[in-house]
Amino acid sequence: MLELPTAADVADAARMISGVAFRTPLLASPELDSITGARVFLKPETLQRTGSFKFRGAYNRLSRIPDDRKSAGVVAMSSGNHALGVATAAKLLGIRAINLMPKDSPATKRERAAAAGAEVILFDREKDDRVAMARAIAEERGAVVVPPYDDFFIIAGQGTVGREIVEDLNKLNLTPDAVLFPCGGGGLLAGNSLAIHEQAPSTKLYSVEPEGFDDHARSFIAGERLANRKASGSLCDGLLAPTPGELTFSINKQHVTGGLVVSEEEVKRAVAFAFRELKLVVEPSGAAALAALLNRRIDVTGQTVVAVLSGGNVDPGLFARLRTHNQ
Amino acid sequence: MLELPTAADVADAARMISGVAFRTPLLASPELDSITGARVFLKPETLQRTGSFKFRGAYNRLSRIPDDRKSAGVVAMSSGNHALGVATAAKLLGIRAINLMPKDSPATKRERAAAAGAEVILFDREKDDRVAMARAIAEERGAVVVPPYDDFFIIAGQGTVGREIVEDLNKLNLTPDAVLFPCGGGGLLAGNSLAIHEQAPSTKLYSVEPEGFDDHARSFIAGERLANRKASGSLCDGLLAPTPGELTFSINKQHVTGGLVVSEEEVKRAVAFAFRELKLVVEPSGAAALAALLNRRIDVTGQTVVAVLSGGNVDPGLFARLRTHNQ
Repeated sequence: MLELPTAADVADAARMISGVAFRTPLLASPELDSITGARVFLKPETLQRTGSFKFRGAYNRLSRIPDDRKSAGVVAMSSGNHALGVATAAKLLGIRAINLMPKDSPATKRERAAAAGAEVILFDREKDDRVAMARAIAEERGAVVVPPYDDFFIIAGQGTVGREIVEDLNKLNLTPDAVLFPCGGGGLLAGNSLAIHEQAPSTKLYSVEPEGFDDHARSFIAGERLANRKASGSLCDGLLAPTPGELTFSINKQHVTGGLVVSEEEVKRAVAFAFRELKLVVEPSGAAALAALLNRRIDVTGQTVVAVLSGGNVDPGLFARLRTHNQ
Repeated sequence: MLELPTAADVADAARMISGVAFRTPLLASPELDSITGARVFLKPETLQRTGSFKFRGAYNRLSRIPDDRKSAGVVAMSSGNHALGVATAAKLLGIRAINLMPKDSPATKRERAAAAGAEVILFDREKDDRVAMARAIAEERGAVVVPPYDDFFIIAGQGTVGREIVEDLNKLNLTPDAVLFPCGGGGLLAGNSLAIHEQAPSTKLYSVEPEGFDDHARSFIAGERLANRKASGSLCDGLLAPTPGELTFSINKQHVTGGLVVSEEEVKRAVAFAFRELKLVVEPSGAAALAALLNRRIDVTGQTVVAVLSGGNVDPGLFARLRTHNQ
């Protein structure tokens, strides 16, 4: 029997990360209001420490490591935002961080992980089994493996996003009718499902995935965890987890209304919209929920709707190409 | 005798724009803390309605127009953020807006002004006297000319930025030691001088200007309004006013500690820094105060410091070139 976190664990995570993670603002957008006919708010986790929501879960997870295991450190496998979140949380907590990254990952991402204080170990995507490598390092050094989403404390930490959304809307005497989340392994969605379901039980929650990587959308319909047919081939490099997580799906299937899917083209236009109208740098993965709103995947007329912008760590060259994308 | 606004007029402006202008957040930045040795906060007016602080003053000014003059409308002369601020405020208040723009201004800026509801009238920079044109239109139609900075209500409106800064820092039990402002005609600086001097009298205030357009820096030393030697030739197109305003300088000379100057190169690097580390789209003019901090124009070690990011309306092509600028 899996032990699943609850809304109380999200509340506990909120206390744990308070004063370390940023409380990101909730931004209104008259342009989006007029496009959608709804009252739209954006939760820009792009402005979170390390440039994505991943820091919340990582800090909550790493905070639970007892003092006598800190020097042995933690191991993460990620070429992206999870690695940055773990490395930065580790640095703040005095924990050693090891990050396994593919040899062909962009130099900028390797440099960022190293700059955040992580020891970077490269692996070959074709030849090496990274999971086995991580386990070997963990066993050899006594380090803790920190998974990107299928973890009790990671899920609870990500849920603090939703707590803040509901609290900030309540200050405006509003309750969200719908909240949309970019979705990879489902950790952000699961934590927020817990938090929002408790605080605002009638709010509808949606996962948003890129075309071809709609494992959540299909799994919600099937009622069981289905896998994507391919492993790569989307600009949304943060949303390519092969299948919903075991813990995350156990939570999400209870609370999520449904899964939305956006095209690559729609994601590109959403990145350009965020640049032009919102003055925010959003990475493709981070713009998926915004893309769903801009392209009216659900009817939100007259409603109060929130889209989470989950991250902003985009390669400058790629951003330059997307930024001028046709409207 | 000029009638100058006071802190009470800023408080009045804050009430006037409440619920219409956004209360922009105050963002912390561990990266900037570590570079400067200070505790740095950013006030991103890039996230303000219309993408710059100009909306605050424009809305406050236009709100004072009596009902019987609304149909006659307002006239602004601007190719930039002031035009957008006035056009959007006019639309919200049911006022007709006319905007005089140079024939050679970028199509995107003309389209934006038109999209915001303004009637755009083009003039020839070489042949036409735009001030005379604006006056003629105003007389003929009974319209009100809305100056970009040297105006009682415009100044009071811009000061609401500083009120929010002090209020939000107070919630963290902090008082700003120094606040840095990008400076063109001095309206943002003047309004904020009033607000911050009243709420936090010991706070040091600085103007930041691009090299070659340091009329404020020199005027503060001289104790009188001096002019720039050239009229164009900086990426900071919002900071090229020929001389400090009459009203604005009367206020600023009382409260401002001094004028800082940054190079074009430093501004470019600040725009790139904002993209890379802060995930914010900032236009060159809007990045001047950040550039001064990044390049340690003043010693802020151990202090609480705020830099205002005044606007984010940057041409996509230009942004693409700046964004990858060498660190």
